[in-house]
Amino acid sequence: MNNLKEAVEAAAERIGPNILETPVVEAPSLSSELGCEVLLKLENIQKTGSFKIRGALNKVLQLTEAEKAAGIVTASSGNHGAAVSKAAQIAGGKVDIYVPEGASPAKIANMERLGGTVHVFGSDSGKSELEAQRVAKETGGTYVSPYNDPQVIAGQGTIGLELSRQVPDMDAVIIAVGGGGLASGIAGYLKAVNPKIETIGAAPAASAAMIASIEAGEIVEIPHDHTLSDGTAGGIDDDAITFPLCRDNLDTLVRVDETAIEEAFRDLFRNEHMLVEGAAAVTLAALRREAPRLKGKKVVLVLCGANISPDVVKSLL
Amino acid sequence: MNNLKEAVEAAAERIGPNILETPVVEAPSLSSELGCEVLLKLENIQKTGSFKIRGALNKVLQLTEAEKAAGIVTASSGNHGAAVSKAAQIAGGKVDIYVPEGASPAKIANMERLGGTVHVFGSDSGKSELEAQRVAKETGGTYVSPYNDPQVIAGQGTIGLELSRQVPDMDAVIIAVGGGGLASGIAGYLKAVNPKIETIGAAPAASAAMIASIEAGEIVEIPHDHTLSDGTAGGIDDDAITFPLCRDNLDTLVRVDETAIEEAFRDLFRNEHMLVEGAAAVTLAALRREAPRLKGKKVVLVLCGANISPDVVKSLL
Repeated sequence: MNNLKEAVEAAAERIGPNILETPVVEAPSLSSELGCEVLLKLENIQKTGSFKIRGALNKVLQLTEAEKAAGIVTASSGNHGAAVSKAAQIAGGKVDIYVPEGASPAKIANMERLGGTVHVFGSDSGKSELEAQRVAKETGGTYVSPYNDPQVIAGQGTIGLELSRQVPDMDAVIIAVGGGGLASGIAGYLKAVNPKIETIGAAPAASAAMIASIEAGEIVEIPHDHTLSDGTAGGIDDDAITFPLCRDNLDTLVRVDETAIEEAFRDLFRNEHMLVEGAAAVTLAALRREAPRLKGKKVVLVLCGANISPDVVKSLL
Repeated sequence: MNNLKEAVEAAAERIGPNILETPVVEAPSLSSELGCEVLLKLENIQKTGSFKIRGALNKVLQLTEAEKAAGIVTASSGNHGAAVSKAAQIAGGKVDIYVPEGASPAKIANMERLGGTVHVFGSDSGKSELEAQRVAKETGGTYVSPYNDPQVIAGQGTIGLELSRQVPDMDAVIIAVGGGGLASGIAGYLKAVNPKIETIGAAPAASAAMIASIEAGEIVEIPHDHTLSDGTAGGIDDDAITFPLCRDNLDTLVRVDETAIEEAFRDLFRNEHMLVEGAAAVTLAALRREAPRLKGKKVVLVLCGANISPDVVKSLL
């Protein structure tokens, strides 16, 4: 993606009328605790409850009528499935979503409410993903990857474009990294417009495939443990285009442990009145580690979503 | 306040650079359940966690240097105290806040972090309020009422001004009513610019002083029971200027019971990923009652704040 900046700018034009330009707000309690100016980019109030609508909509809006008629297929047990369903609701098109056994009934109901047809397949998300790809190939439908797609990445990058306008003097931005679509889009765009901004990618130590891959110099498989940051958990495709983008555009990589993520969730909830999902709390946990060298700096945390189960919230409080 | 519209427009100019123009977002799950188009005005992400900063800042920004030097005095155990402290942090001035015994240590710490000096006085909020007024009189300071002040009302009214731009075709707006500052400002402004908009004032049945007063045709004292909507609880001043404003500008008055408020809190949390305080949930509880006659209409719920204790959230989930 040599033209990521242009692709992001085009995506912003394309999806702008249908997404929320989320505000950036101060976090006074965190700022006074950590000694830097902490700002929060509120993708937790984005449509469908996460940033995923940006990439999904940018992708679906570029399908032809024939492609939409042939069907849109994806695999997800959470935010991405809701985002693709919503995107098809806006742009037109029929969506089939493959979810693994044991997927949350609340999330399935949400995808169905948005017009998606949900198929339960396979014992884990890897298997449901392969099935979705197989069905797309067999039926001539379009498979929409949650991150391994230039148009999805460009859509997520519109957050970077908004930030460059909303906080032109930011010193650093912290982004949760799973498959790397969000980080590729935001860091790629920001580095293109202002290389001085420090881009920090953060992941739970329990499942940090992209960080391990960047450290290894190639995409590697690693063991995955359970993490509160379910939105970033799991492995990455062998041919992930996000790998070179994250490798080249992230200045700093931070792993955080589960205790730190839980503590960050509570802090955002108690002190900043923000309801976020685990992946968003990862950014604050990472800031806690990096804060000593960021004293006096203006740091943006991307709060990527708010899709968290009330039972989990209850257990965390 | 014959010139409420002008006062609101002036307030918007005055406070605009220092407050967040909060977004309006769709609530797809509620819309499909209730059969009307439900929109949420997100004052729950406003600075200090509630709309109160609008009125407090509009007031404090109009004090002279001499008035600010003489001191700002208020009484509050929650949002208003934090808002006045923040307003003085922005505009300059020293703030003394009187809180009743038993006030939440977390809320006191928050007011102190924002620069306020907190004094614990009296066994209930009525007593701490009288003490704050006495001190202001004795010291020549300025007492800032949470609602019984034209400049505070004009500040809250800026929400109405934003709504009239953000949702020009709204059919109805639902506002929680306690002392009536928020409802006076929003309903007063909207009725001045478009009398066709239905303005609905909602209060917990456990503490509905303004509704009881409007029904009685004069300000009356009523018994108050405990309510999740602590932000709207309590009596209103004998000389409240909000009384005629609410009486003349609210088309519909709705009392809701505690079970309905709790259920509304859970719905906003679970289905719309919104963390709100009890007073904000009151608006959804009221919509549930009014929805049958609002089918197909575009209805805005003002989510007035997010200051709720994690322990309360835990017990509600």
